[in-house]
Amino acid sequence: MTDPLPAPLGSGAPIPGASISGPLSPDLLRRMHGYWRAANYLSVGQIYLRANPLLDRPLALADVKTRLLGHWGTTPGLNLLYVHLNRLIVEHDLNMIAVIGPGHGGPGLVANTYLEGSYTERYPAIERSRGGMDRLFRQFSWPGGIPSHVAPETPGSIHEGGELGYSLAHAYGAVFDNPDLIVACVVGDGEAETGALATSWHSNKFLNPARDGAVLPILHLNGFKIANPTLLARIGRAELTELLRGYGYDPHFVVGDDPEAVHQTLAATLDAVLAQIQDIQAQARYGAPDGERPRWPMIVLQTPKGWTGPKFVDGKPVEGTWRAHQVPIADFKEPEHLRQLEEWLLSYRPAELFDETGKFREEYASLAPTGHRRMGSNPHANGGELLVPLVLPDFRDHAVAQAGHGTVKAAATAVLGGFLRDVMALNLEAANFRLFGPDETASNRLQAVYEVTGKAWMAEVEPVDENLSRDGRVMEVLSEHLCEGWLEGYLLTGRHGLFSCYEAFIHIIDSMFNQHAKWLKVTRGIPWRRPIASLNYLLTSHVWRQDHNGLSHQDPGFLDHVANKKAEVVRIYLPADANCLLSVADHCLRSRNYVNVIVAGKQPEWQWLGIDEAVRHCTTGAGVWEWASDPGDPDVVMACAGDVPTLETMAAVQLLRQFVPDIRIRVVNVVDLMVLQPQSEHPHGLDERAFDALFTTDTPVIFAFHGYPSLIHKLAYRRTNHRNFHVRGYKDEGTTTTPFDMVVLNDLDRYRLALDAIERIPRLRDRVPAETERYWTMIERHRLYIAEHGEDLPEVRDWQWTR
Amino acid sequence: MTDPLPAPLGSGAPIPGASISGPLSPDLLRRMHGYWRAANYLSVGQIYLRANPLLDRPLALADVKTRLLGHWGTTPGLNLLYVHLNRLIVEHDLNMIAVIGPGHGGPGLVANTYLEGSYTERYPAIERSRGGMDRLFRQFSWPGGIPSHVAPETPGSIHEGGELGYSLAHAYGAVFDNPDLIVACVVGDGEAETGALATSWHSNKFLNPARDGAVLPILHLNGFKIANPTLLARIGRAELTELLRGYGYDPHFVVGDDPEAVHQTLAATLDAVLAQIQDIQAQARYGAPDGERPRWPMIVLQTPKGWTGPKFVDGKPVEGTWRAHQVPIADFKEPEHLRQLEEWLLSYRPAELFDETGKFREEYASLAPTGHRRMGSNPHANGGELLVPLVLPDFRDHAVAQAGHGTVKAAATAVLGGFLRDVMALNLEAANFRLFGPDETASNRLQAVYEVTGKAWMAEVEPVDENLSRDGRVMEVLSEHLCEGWLEGYLLTGRHGLFSCYEAFIHIIDSMFNQHAKWLKVTRGIPWRRPIASLNYLLTSHVWRQDHNGLSHQDPGFLDHVANKKAEVVRIYLPADANCLLSVADHCLRSRNYVNVIVAGKQPEWQWLGIDEAVRHCTTGAGVWEWASDPGDPDVVMACAGDVPTLETMAAVQLLRQFVPDIRIRVVNVVDLMVLQPQSEHPHGLDERAFDALFTTDTPVIFAFHGYPSLIHKLAYRRTNHRNFHVRGYKDEGTTTTPFDMVVLNDLDRYRLALDAIERIPRLRDRVPAETERYWTMIERHRLYIAEHGEDLPEVRDWQWTR
Repeated sequence: MTDPLPAPLGSGAPIPGASISGPLSPDLLRRMHGYWRAANYLSVGQIYLRANPLLDRPLALADVKTRLLGHWGTTPGLNLLYVHLNRLIVEHDLNMIAVIGPGHGGPGLVANTYLEGSYTERYPAIERSRGGMDRLFRQFSWPGGIPSHVAPETPGSIHEGGELGYSLAHAYGAVFDNPDLIVACVVGDGEAETGALATSWHSNKFLNPARDGAVLPILHLNGFKIANPTLLARIGRAELTELLRGYGYDPHFVVGDDPEAVHQTLAATLDAVLAQIQDIQAQARYGAPDGERPRWPMIVLQTPKGWTGPKFVDGKPVEGTWRAHQVPIADFKEPEHLRQLEEWLLSYRPAELFDETGKFREEYASLAPTGHRRMGSNPHANGGELLVPLVLPDFRDHAVAQAGHGTVKAAATAVLGGFLRDVMALNLEAANFRLFGPDETASNRLQAVYEVTGKAWMAEVEPVDENLSRDGRVMEVLSEHLCEGWLEGYLLTGRHGLFSCYEAFIHIIDSMFNQHAKWLKVTRGIPWRRPIASLNYLLTSHVWRQDHNGLSHQDPGFLDHVANKKAEVVRIYLPADANCLLSVADHCLRSRNYVNVIVAGKQPEWQWLGIDEAVRHCTTGAGVWEWASDPGDPDVVMACAGDVPTLETMAAVQLLRQFVPDIRIRVVNVVDLMVLQPQSEHPHGLDERAFDALFTTDTPVIFAFHGYPSLIHKLAYRRTNHRNFHVRGYKDEGTTTTPFDMVVLNDLDRYRLALDAIERIPRLRDRVPAETERYWTMIERHRLYIAEHGEDLPEVRDWQWTR
Repeated sequence: MTDPLPAPLGSGAPIPGASISGPLSPDLLRRMHGYWRAANYLSVGQIYLRANPLLDRPLALADVKTRLLGHWGTTPGLNLLYVHLNRLIVEHDLNMIAVIGPGHGGPGLVANTYLEGSYTERYPAIERSRGGMDRLFRQFSWPGGIPSHVAPETPGSIHEGGELGYSLAHAYGAVFDNPDLIVACVVGDGEAETGALATSWHSNKFLNPARDGAVLPILHLNGFKIANPTLLARIGRAELTELLRGYGYDPHFVVGDDPEAVHQTLAATLDAVLAQIQDIQAQARYGAPDGERPRWPMIVLQTPKGWTGPKFVDGKPVEGTWRAHQVPIADFKEPEHLRQLEEWLLSYRPAELFDETGKFREEYASLAPTGHRRMGSNPHANGGELLVPLVLPDFRDHAVAQAGHGTVKAAATAVLGGFLRDVMALNLEAANFRLFGPDETASNRLQAVYEVTGKAWMAEVEPVDENLSRDGRVMEVLSEHLCEGWLEGYLLTGRHGLFSCYEAFIHIIDSMFNQHAKWLKVTRGIPWRRPIASLNYLLTSHVWRQDHNGLSHQDPGFLDHVANKKAEVVRIYLPADANCLLSVADHCLRSRNYVNVIVAGKQPEWQWLGIDEAVRHCTTGAGVWEWASDPGDPDVVMACAGDVPTLETMAAVQLLRQFVPDIRIRVVNVVDLMVLQPQSEHPHGLDERAFDALFTTDTPVIFAFHGYPSLIHKLAYRRTNHRNFHVRGYKDEGTTTTPFDMVVLNDLDRYRLALDAIERIPRLRDRVPAETERYWTMIERHRLYIAEHGEDLPEVRDWQWTR
């Protein structure tokens, strides 16, 4: 069947000059249109061709890739925006990068960075010549080549876009504290349906135009997803306008399918929105500093999906439909398709755009910005290039002092709060450190930071509010997605931060963590990507102290999720007390290219180590607590990781000594969970000798763990003594109850740990029946007591370590 | 310091009758106000009191609980809504339930269900008497008592609300296919900041007023979160109105802090919105069926946080501020606080409301609906009561026929699509089955369902659209949150469904799965909660076949996340081919109260088992594939779970027989992953004898697994032969490449599996060097081939099982 193929929309047809008025002169319009055609040509070439890049001989079947991969639908729109943003950058000498939500449009971004030269600078083999173009086409979605998305490999990208929803949060994170930066953020209309994106629009209430840069959201109303129309394209312009105004924006619509008209309208609109942005910034910087929250401009770009591609294939409409989403023409066993592809490619008139050597002709190439103004070379998109290390105070100044071990109580995160306050203060001038949290900074006891900075807030303020400030460096919003997305954007552009979160609810951003960890993994293999500051999580209000909030607030499973990721990227720390937390936090803030997860409690609890001991202990990652242990070969190793498990272990040790005076106990505390893995699996893994020296090769190990017990088995199953590991941890039991009942419900309590030890020490076998009875008596007492009093047994509440 | 405590707002002060006009007569107003006071009194009582419930003697310190837990701030607003919704139900004989987004307002819902009698029907010990009230107060947030949230224990609840964001999606899920049901959904203004909630407003584009019920969203503009104002309370009414209209609603504002005025306005507003709802439904049901998408009404209720609570405590403002969020008066070491609490409680004039026996006086009690019209007794909120089993076709009719093993190819999910089409068709009349997916139903090859139903869509339609329909039973939106939330709401109200999703992106709803699994765990212990249909996930477009989309699309970690949950709740199935998938799917659709995760590929692949074999195999959950194995004691067990691992294992077996003709191999395939766990840990766990019969006690096991290898170790580490388990699976290696390269990158390919076996069979030790060299030669050939051709080696693409 023959396709009724009209000339593709405006790709080949000449731009008729000044017939439509607008800011672009006929010549500039013609050259910009040529630039766009070139980007489209290179995009189609990447998707389809493995040879014959300049089409200087008839297209043959052998020139076409066997497997056709990539997404055409979104690409022409992205290419159009890129050439227009280039004009804006050049005319106004802008410091601008693009965040591309429709990350599937990889070919477009590769094409544009190739055209502007930044691609070849990063990848010299992809020269701006016939041979280079040949390799450019061939490498796309090719084994050993480049991925199909706007990936870490793509110059100028801080956003992969494979998993949809995070573009706008990344864009805002990038401009915080970057007053000169503008991020043009393309939001796909598919992406706009996701939860993360739907709330990201509200980021404008946290952006201070005096201090921060600007985000220019561009909602690309392409109209279709894989197989469906998009919601925002089908609610009518009036309702969409209300929605975007309700989000606090001033939307400018650019709508059309006639290239000339769209070029002029888009150019005029970009001029207008830039003027608005500059006006807002000038007002805030040089006018009234406390003026009303500005209504930021944004653009809605409504152009056909797969614009300039084939209108019909096999008699079915393609351009402007969901059929244009991926590869519009496939199945080249149908000979007509080859002709149609050739016609499509030639409609861009490549010979006009590239000379016979494959070089992009100067009349078009000269439109691009130069040097670091090119979006593919802007250092903000390779944040490590701009990274300034934090000035860190001496964390020892915040140490909890104590005469012995277990003699004072302190709230670990409150102590950390003091340290973070000083970190904040020392880096206020550098303006490169922020704290992120979903309405929980004070609930998590970090409120000392408010002594030096407030919470960023541009919305209305009432007298009863506390600590809100336009200049605040604490970012609070009841959305884990926004906290995570902003922080990622902030880190990817070369700054530092920490995300504190209720432990259970960090699962809300499991998938965002996933994608960031993948990004880090890939960038480690890209020499030009400079290391960035680590993504630091402080998980607190943790499972063992959410007895008051109940089961929905109790979940330590993020550790398992993190432990699945590449060892070179992830670190998990479980400091047992405040001094250990200080040491770990200091280390994490200095580290690069990791995801660090720190779990620490916020309730006042016994402190175990002096600061120097803590530093030594945390540096090794795990160690024998000699002061709590008996010399020589032990009957049992009482191991622990996490603050509450450590508390229960210490209490169990004391019980054991009371029950069995001649028992020999070794206490091993683990701070850095990755030491448990073999060295072959993780760089922090202890070597076999060191591991065996801690855990022995044949002694029972009672391991009290903060999370699910299986994680310890997973990490340690290859160790010599693993068969003797008996791990207690969270087993999904909980409700609204008391703190001690939480450990009882999960068999992590001191009585159970003591009984576990007795059961496993051969020479104490005779005592097991009596001790078991004693155990059940204790549990029964506990149950009766809490049912009667609603709080824990005095002997538990008042327990203190003695030896 | 003495608190400047004015009479709490409108709690004790008499309602002055008809001074403000509105639909409520002076008498009704007075009684409704009394009802509200009673609910508030019972809420404060639950938070504070452990004795003296009717305050018929002066409040003493001993009457107050030691640990004060609960959230007062949101509660008076919820109580106000409950009494007003009761009036609406009674006056219009409505079928209504409430979904309470601010789930922390547990005391309010408990109070109201107690007042209407439904609580006592579920919990006879909590009588409507002095003694019952005593127990009601004492049990709240008390060990062995009830949780502080609107929990599964709360009659009338289908939503816990501990983790914020899912109320509105649950509400819409509940009304789909329930034309008579209205769900009043209270959305907290804190919750409204979450991503999931922000996109949930768009659910109205998927609700068909002719077929579905109605959701009445009530945005409770309480003003504050734990420590911050809420965004939506600080953008001004104009912008908020635009936002809500942009979401497609017609917002009605009820604003005030004068109880009488608010009572009248709220009542008038509820009358108005009910009329609007009924009008929309009448239009759609009896008028023009294809009319415009309606603009549904909603309410914005703006009242002070902690309304009627103390205005000041210790000189600081509380009512109407974030300080009212949790327990407004604490620390009863301050004697003034006790007096203040007593005054607060007495301001509700309990003696007027309850008689001396503790019985709620009839003049107020008679306002409540009766029987199943009470929101605490509505069967829709205990969906199992309404559950009608699906009519299931014989899945054997969809079986892939084949003469032997591995003789035909089929796309497993496409075969399943045929079965699901028939399931859909057979239950169209019952209207109790829907499919959910984020724009991927066809991409996941389930498009056969479109032969009998379309995709639900109420927004604009254009000629190019396919399969959109107002009556469609396939729910597609690019939001995993919405798919999950809708499905949960649909299941919790007694219906059936399946969620198909790209495997990598199911992590987006990790935390929602978490909360649903917790809900199921708790309901298993609540006798009156009837079992509901299982939550079924079909994870496809899985890690091994996302070679074209690259690393961001490759992640099998959801299995680990699921495996952490209570064994009684979760099931994981990895059918190796289409017939196994059919058997598993049939089983899952019949099951109750589980979360079933099925992983299956969508690409055409070799089929292994006839349908009868498949049924037997899936029923056992794991078994020896005798037809692929050698008789007697094997040299090696080649185990596999998942379609691609099975394929590679079968190919490895063939290679091994070719390399080592006298080798004795046993092939074990695992469908039901939980059989690997000990029986003590999971009801599906094989007993030791059966496990050892499969995997032996001493033979090397080469286990090819779909997900992260550690999951197999975690499940099987207690098994006798575990030390000989050598597991291959995903290790986070991937990019845009070929399918076979994906397994090569992760050491899961046939050559590696064969070499693994040879390395572990003692009698073949001499052959290891030669086989290792052969392995590297193969890998080198593979690499060269894909770099040159961009597709897999012909011997891999064309491989077929022979024996």
